Amino acid sequence: TLAAPAIAQETPKVTWRCSSGFPKSLPTIFGAAEVFAEAVAEATDGNFEIQTFGAGEIVGALEGADAVKNGTIEMAHTASYYFTGIDPTYAFGTGVPFGLNQRMTNAWMYEGGGLELLNKFYAKQNMISFPAGNTGAQMGGWFRKEINSLEDMKGLKFRIGGFGGRIMEKIGVVPQGLPGGDIYPALEKGTIDAAEFVGPYDDQKLGFNKVAPYYYYPGWWEGGVTLLNMINMDAWNSLTPAYQGIVKSASALANSVMMARYDILNPTALKELAAAGTQLRPYSQDIMEACFDAATETYAEISAENADFKEIHDSYMAYRKEGYLWFQLSEYNFDTFLMLQQRAGKL
Amino acid sequence: TLAAPAIAQETPKVTWRCSSGFPKSLPTIFGAAEVFAEAVAEATDGNFEIQTFGAGEIVGALEGADAVKNGTIEMAHTASYYFTGIDPTYAFGTGVPFGLNQRMTNAWMYEGGGLELLNKFYAKQNMISFPAGNTGAQMGGWFRKEINSLEDMKGLKFRIGGFGGRIMEKIGVVPQGLPGGDIYPALEKGTIDAAEFVGPYDDQKLGFNKVAPYYYYPGWWEGGVTLLNMINMDAWNSLTPAYQGIVKSASALANSVMMARYDILNPTALKELAAAGTQLRPYSQDIMEACFDAATETYAEISAENADFKEIHDSYMAYRKEGYLWFQLSEYNFDTFLMLQQRAGKL
Repeated sequence: TLAAPAIAQETPKVTWRCSSGFPKSLPTIFGAAEVFAEAVAEATDGNFEIQTFGAGEIVGALEGADAVKNGTIEMAHTASYYFTGIDPTYAFGTGVPFGLNQRMTNAWMYEGGGLELLNKFYAKQNMISFPAGNTGAQMGGWFRKEINSLEDMKGLKFRIGGFGGRIMEKIGVVPQGLPGGDIYPALEKGTIDAAEFVGPYDDQKLGFNKVAPYYYYPGWWEGGVTLLNMINMDAWNSLTPAYQGIVKSASALANSVMMARYDILNPTALKELAAAGTQLRPYSQDIMEACFDAATETYAEISAENADFKEIHDSYMAYRKEGYLWFQLSEYNFDTFLMLQQRAGKL
Repeated sequence: TLAAPAIAQETPKVTWRCSSGFPKSLPTIFGAAEVFAEAVAEATDGNFEIQTFGAGEIVGALEGADAVKNGTIEMAHTASYYFTGIDPTYAFGTGVPFGLNQRMTNAWMYEGGGLELLNKFYAKQNMISFPAGNTGAQMGGWFRKEINSLEDMKGLKFRIGGFGGRIMEKIGVVPQGLPGGDIYPALEKGTIDAAEFVGPYDDQKLGFNKVAPYYYYPGWWEGGVTLLNMINMDAWNSLTPAYQGIVKSASALANSVMMARYDILNPTALKELAAAGTQLRPYSQDIMEACFDAATETYAEISAENADFKEIHDSYMAYRKEGYLWFQLSEYNFDTFLMLQQRAGKL
């Protein structure tokens, strides 16, 4: 008899289901999963098919980690901080409050040992992960009323993503952990007083500006939010080395394209929002400083009782100190000069 | 007779030569070509082999474009601004003075129509290109003497990369177009008065600090320097669609990893340089402003006589205006707050 054709081993047929943590209506944060799936399909002549599903289609946004861990789905494209209820260590896959900006996050993950540390933790969760999207520094959310000081934050029901809520609690906020698709009705009905999601483009698309006039910045709890391709370890191990390589490269493409898409779409959305009456407001310095101190305190508390958290935290924060030193020099001065030209109408 | 096995068409043996525009001693700017080659090899089970060569090994740094165009080599991993002598339009593949920072460059290329416009131009040069590395905002170079004002720049023999030299000429500098590997001996001998290359890590490695004490910032002519994989069009067209997809994704990986590597290595090198006596100096505001005006003037002059340049320029500059508006909000305020904490010793 003839042996099975060698071709079947080189580019085998593989079908995976990828559940996004976000609604299909967003070409940005959901779109990155599609960019990834398309790149994998292209690199394998369509033999490795990744089917993408919006949050709730096959798995809810907050069930992603369990579904991947148990092999219900092969992978999720999501913000790992949705799963800090399982273990706070999940926060670092996305980024933590007052943490690394987008470029520093990539530096730490790709070349600073960050991804190895994350995957040491994810291996215990029967997963492996790769960065596959970033939002950059997000906006600080939509408020029905102006927030002028720390006092105004007390008692506020605020929808806030993942780990930021834990910091907010320390200054008296009552955090609400709703997935993206559920925010608008809650804000409209007044079940919550304020909500943050991502930035101008996504937020406008979900209509938050229609139900809250004040738009704050910066989103200090999401300075460089990373999405991960979280992959079931058995599914990963069943791939050929070539397919594993393709997943790594295609994740990097999605990581860049998602950031790029936000940076192209956000400026236009920002101008439209401002033209339609949205009021931009910076967080007051006392709020920023109280939250920074609360964050530092929280990291120390968790580190004292969670060795996985501590190990990743120490590496992440060591680089934060280096990164913000280096970026002060050419990067910051270059940007500042160009921003001043922008304000002077010279660009 | 038996048909040729189908496998030969799925993952055919391909060998390409890739000439880097940089010396092999630099794991950063040369290393990115290796990251790319390794990712392609991994994704194809080693069937698509890309051999990487340092500048001058098979092709000189300044001959890269011609060698790719003529098919002497299949591809180069280089700064396209080395080839502005052939056509100034080549500048945009790398980035232009007072142009887009690293993240904006990616935004414009991946999602702002930039790469399509670049490749419309490169097609006329018998090439196709993909971003495959970035340095971020570079430092502004090493000077034997302090430069306190615009007047001090006049008559200065300054090694400066590509297009920046043309701007510098307008303020009286005598630009020198040496490739990276030739800078040190020229600076040591005093053939040149000053030289810029990249940033702390590369510059320290090439030893410039030993022959010039003053280190200026920012490198306003290189705010987000991109390296391209410049690929001969016939070589590209001979690839299977899957291999083309792999080249695109692997280029994206190299693009991110090179930036990450710089952001990890530069802070340490910067501290070492400062500890060993290097004097950090900002460019004076009058120099920055005179150069900005000279750049704007130069772009208008070239646009008036070169339609390819104008088309890409207009798209690039339209996004510059949008990008520096958007980045002023969350991104800048987030970074600024963290930098202030860094200075206060709180990180």
